[in-house]
Amino acid sequence: MSKVNSQLVQDVLVELDASSSTPLHRQIETALRDAIHTGRLRHGSSLPASRRLATELGVSRGVVVEAYNQLVAEGYLHSTPGSYTRVAAVAEQAAPAPATAPAPGARVDFGYGRTDAASFPRAAWLRSLRRVLTEAPHDRLNYSDGYGVPELRTALADYLNRARGTSATAGDVLITCGFAQAVALLAGVAARRGARRVATEDPSADDDIRPLARLHGLEVVGLPVDADGVDVAALERSDADLVVLTPSHQWPLGGVLPAESRNAVVRWARARGAIVLEDDYDAEYRYDRAPIGAMQGLAPDVVVHAGSVSKTLAAGLRLGWLVLPPHLAEPVAEAKLLADRGSPAIEQLAFADFLVHGEFDRHLRRMRPIYRRRRDTLLAQLAEHLPGWEPAGIAAGLHLVVWLPDGLDEAEVVAAAARHGIRVAGLAPYRLNERRSKEHSRQGLILGYSDLPEPRIAEGVRALAKALAG
Amino acid sequence: MSKVNSQLVQDVLVELDASSSTPLHRQIETALRDAIHTGRLRHGSSLPASRRLATELGVSRGVVVEAYNQLVAEGYLHSTPGSYTRVAAVAEQAAPAPATAPAPGARVDFGYGRTDAASFPRAAWLRSLRRVLTEAPHDRLNYSDGYGVPELRTALADYLNRARGTSATAGDVLITCGFAQAVALLAGVAARRGARRVATEDPSADDDIRPLARLHGLEVVGLPVDADGVDVAALERSDADLVVLTPSHQWPLGGVLPAESRNAVVRWARARGAIVLEDDYDAEYRYDRAPIGAMQGLAPDVVVHAGSVSKTLAAGLRLGWLVLPPHLAEPVAEAKLLADRGSPAIEQLAFADFLVHGEFDRHLRRMRPIYRRRRDTLLAQLAEHLPGWEPAGIAAGLHLVVWLPDGLDEAEVVAAAARHGIRVAGLAPYRLNERRSKEHSRQGLILGYSDLPEPRIAEGVRALAKALAG
Repeated sequence: MSKVNSQLVQDVLVELDASSSTPLHRQIETALRDAIHTGRLRHGSSLPASRRLATELGVSRGVVVEAYNQLVAEGYLHSTPGSYTRVAAVAEQAAPAPATAPAPGARVDFGYGRTDAASFPRAAWLRSLRRVLTEAPHDRLNYSDGYGVPELRTALADYLNRARGTSATAGDVLITCGFAQAVALLAGVAARRGARRVATEDPSADDDIRPLARLHGLEVVGLPVDADGVDVAALERSDADLVVLTPSHQWPLGGVLPAESRNAVVRWARARGAIVLEDDYDAEYRYDRAPIGAMQGLAPDVVVHAGSVSKTLAAGLRLGWLVLPPHLAEPVAEAKLLADRGSPAIEQLAFADFLVHGEFDRHLRRMRPIYRRRRDTLLAQLAEHLPGWEPAGIAAGLHLVVWLPDGLDEAEVVAAAARHGIRVAGLAPYRLNERRSKEHSRQGLILGYSDLPEPRIAEGVRALAKALAG
Repeated sequence: MSKVNSQLVQDVLVELDASSSTPLHRQIETALRDAIHTGRLRHGSSLPASRRLATELGVSRGVVVEAYNQLVAEGYLHSTPGSYTRVAAVAEQAAPAPATAPAPGARVDFGYGRTDAASFPRAAWLRSLRRVLTEAPHDRLNYSDGYGVPELRTALADYLNRARGTSATAGDVLITCGFAQAVALLAGVAARRGARRVATEDPSADDDIRPLARLHGLEVVGLPVDADGVDVAALERSDADLVVLTPSHQWPLGGVLPAESRNAVVRWARARGAIVLEDDYDAEYRYDRAPIGAMQGLAPDVVVHAGSVSKTLAAGLRLGWLVLPPHLAEPVAEAKLLADRGSPAIEQLAFADFLVHGEFDRHLRRMRPIYRRRRDTLLAQLAEHLPGWEPAGIAAGLHLVVWLPDGLDEAEVVAAAARHGIRVAGLAPYRLNERRSKEHSRQGLILGYSDLPEPRIAEGVRALAKALAG
């Protein structure tokens, strides 16, 4: 079947009920999802144009577009500009297989660090690129300075002050090629100013920090982390000149650094003349309460704020930023010029346009419920199939941690999962210290869910349970 | 006057002659340029739509479009998508001022290092971006490896082998954020492998190399340069582990390294286990004979080829590349990952598309005659107004050097020019050695002409002559 005719539309959408309290677009989503799950809509089937379906259903076109977008984002549908919206191949693969006959070659990757690349707002990004290429002055295409194009520095200061509670002017913002470069630049500047030791959370995403510290001759010291974030007393004993923290959502354990700890970190940094690098890596995704404001707003004199679009738009854009105190801005800008003569101009201008036109907010509003539903699905599936596993750090972000029951070794679980085609990560690769606190030695897994449609999550958890049972 | 009516069109184009050996588009260009020079077409005047003018003149529309594009590129006309093509402000400013009354505030910048940003092929670049955003697989939007996207590595290997005579497979190509980053990565890798000393041409564009060498603890040694490029005997005595050369067009003096010197450099590098970094910075622009092939093709085992689009498309793209021998590819890719986790993906894919669709060749074909005419104008104006100055390095590139007559000090000339609103650079900032050879101590200026429409060049040279006279 290559087209959906009116009869099929009626068949698929039997449950559409205008008087229900469930929003109409959600009802359409559910009906289409069910039709895909049960095979009534098969891989490759075209859906009717949104305008036509809206007319047939007596709803506004926006309702249908929203439902389609949602299902595209979830991986059920595939949309090609200028062509039909079709049922995606992945959706069919992902349909629940009978429990007794797992699909051969099933592969679910709970890896962390990706956005849902299928949800990248290609059309809106292209609109921004078109405006930039039509309107940008010629001199923007030449070499720039080490800070970045003024349009983006202004737009980012506005956004970060509004959404992240920073205290930034455009003059404080410096554009980088992502967070890794931000760390590289700041570590280099700190080392040249006499820094000897950098402290990081333990566990942490130290794959950026440890090799860069080595490159610049800095010693790395790990600071224990619990459910409330970093151990500030350990920081105070650390003799560090630079500390890299994830105060709003500790990576990977998910803790939020409490206010008294934030203040203690700031007092420590001021007394010592140290730098605090705040890695605000996924602050945009907080599901169950209001987002936690950035530490930089508390103490812009000692806290350097670092962010990127890698967890919001796409890591492939390589777009990040630093908010710097005045005494660090000029040396970091010089280091940036020396490293690569400044970030690509057209992409910077496009992101500025994307921010100014409200597209970034719109994208985040669209993605938050998608990611939240994936998290909810993961939690529900874990509760059902692996009730002894204890989820943590679930309030925000694109991943969670599960603590394993006593007696289970994370390396063995990772290996068993791999044999069943499931990729998960343990915590060990992200730990620094040999002598480990009780919290550190606890065995756990990191489960990313950002680019897994809900059926894949369910499939993955069932396969994990089976791997443990077998 | 805000519109050009048919009568005016006829007035302006009185000399159009279909039987002439001069191409029709060139005749139209000349007529319009003259009309602007003489004030018949004034700043802000609209030109007729290309289709209408073509109909009135009985020529194909392509002829008119080509003439308009040419004059837009030269700065006479200004084109806004969806609107009229108008006479540009700069063209009127640049109209010859009476010799007795120099325009107050006249400003001509003979600075080097820019393309003509006004000629950036915005529409074609946007077409490539649109194709990429429509067609690229989702996973291209995630993190990539340190080498770059495969599409661009393949397209560049094809282009460089064809146009520059390199010997490269896609596997040898690594994408960087421009030449500066290429040097930074390679210098870091060389230093970590035990290199102690880097040799550069003297004079050279050492603003990239000297501070990077310092950053990595490398000593810098300068090698004398004459009209035939670098002094290979000095290289052989240099004890260098890495040498940065511009063999196809020495910067700034313009020499081409002869075949016997190239072979001697390769023998030296092989015997010593040293690396030759070939900075192929503007090889695409050679006007009077066939381009000189890249040294890398001669010895891909010891020569690293480095290029960028900064002198062809736009420096603001920050797109460059290295062609690396196998033993260097992996360490440089690791350094690239550590520096910034790889270059932006969409821009890389767009450049690959741009290459594959022939747009890069098309752009170069369009720009070569524009730059050549600017060079010819500069030479003609120098011969007329400053006959004692001796141009050198004129066969290629986007700049030339003029040797000053005995008794003239380059710093004094630079200062006198600045007082007359003319920016030129001396050679001193690009020299390394204190004890200077005769060639080195010779006083000279670097004159870039890449983004100066011909009237500005004429104005600038006249102002230089006046600055020296007064």
